[in-house]
Amino acid sequence: MCGKVCHTSLIGGFMEDKMVPNIVVGRLPLYLRTLQLMNQEGRRVTSSQELGERLGISAAQIRKDLSQFGEFGKQGTGYSIEFLTKQLREILHVDKVWDVAVVGIGDVGHALARYQGFSNRGFRIVMLFDSDQHKIGTQVGEFTVQNINNVVPMIRQSGVQVAMLSVPADQAQHVTNSLVEAGVKSILNYAPINITVPVSVHVQYIDPVLHLQRMTYYLE
Amino acid sequence: MCGKVCHTSLIGGFMEDKMVPNIVVGRLPLYLRTLQLMNQEGRRVTSSQELGERLGISAAQIRKDLSQFGEFGKQGTGYSIEFLTKQLREILHVDKVWDVAVVGIGDVGHALARYQGFSNRGFRIVMLFDSDQHKIGTQVGEFTVQNINNVVPMIRQSGVQVAMLSVPADQAQHVTNSLVEAGVKSILNYAPINITVPVSVHVQYIDPVLHLQRMTYYLE
Repeated sequence: MCGKVCHTSLIGGFMEDKMVPNIVVGRLPLYLRTLQLMNQEGRRVTSSQELGERLGISAAQIRKDLSQFGEFGKQGTGYSIEFLTKQLREILHVDKVWDVAVVGIGDVGHALARYQGFSNRGFRIVMLFDSDQHKIGTQVGEFTVQNINNVVPMIRQSGVQVAMLSVPADQAQHVTNSLVEAGVKSILNYAPINITVPVSVHVQYIDPVLHLQRMTYYLE
Repeated sequence: MCGKVCHTSLIGGFMEDKMVPNIVVGRLPLYLRTLQLMNQEGRRVTSSQELGERLGISAAQIRKDLSQFGEFGKQGTGYSIEFLTKQLREILHVDKVWDVAVVGIGDVGHALARYQGFSNRGFRIVMLFDSDQHKIGTQVGEFTVQNINNVVPMIRQSGVQVAMLSVPADQAQHVTNSLVEAGVKSILNYAPINITVPVSVHVQYIDPVLHLQRMTYYLE
């Protein structure tokens, strides 16, 4: 939502600063996911045409998006799935694994703590927090639920920069303030409320109703 | 993802057909959610400036988006929150309540069945389905879990057009085919896999990793 940002890429041996629109950055994870699925299917090579058909995006758009970051394919021979996957993982900084804290262990927090979709995609949950005395100390998946009162020192000490927020809406801003104080730089917010953070912190929202309303627009 | 669609709006007493980009449609639910929060705060009037500050979108963009659908505010006096809310609900077709089926009652399905964020936003869950004999017949929230084998006749008879899909990835396409056969027109897919549907059916994806990767792009 912050307009454009500066992306530094190594092209032709020299560093070039480019402004890459957020909307383009937002499509890269879709491309990466599709490439990883193709790889699981045993595929080696793909094209912007095929990627576009799988994603409902035009081939021209995909070529244009990727061209912002370099030359990843040859005319006529398409993209090496392995090479393009590696490049996208580097661009998105998921060639490493990010430790993630989950704050709020209700239904959504439970689902996240046991979600199988993180592995090999750059993230692993390492900590769970809740304020409910009945939940603190219990085991969820591989983890023991920690007391939310300890969230600042524990996150600060661990160096965790990514958090998923699944607390009730009326607690979301208060908990967010603690996460920011602890050094968290990226927050995925499941609470159905907008939260305020400093410009150095990124927030993404998961609210099923936003997605449902985008679709009912097209229904009679 | 389907480019542009035809939107019919009543402006100045005559019908005008306009093509509204998907990206604009996608922002309307954000505006609506923010207006509903302002209303809860007891507010009566807002401006594109204030909406923009809350959402990290420029005031000019908000004015441009809304102008695609009509004239909703007066220069200098801003928008009536009540009036703009009503208009956006009509545009997004959430001035009625849509019945929703949840298919796949694992952690995510449980969370959805008990999610408090649907009320007053145009949706209510009316049916749950699963294939697990241990879950079929059990109670989750207000509902009894139904056998997935009955999904086509039950959805067809009820007229449900909206479904949330929270089955494992390897079952997602198979179940999607049944939902389409049953007449579902909008699918919110939580399975970390792309599904294929006829052009008359809309799909939105909820995959936390896509959102996390959009943010790690900006992290060092």
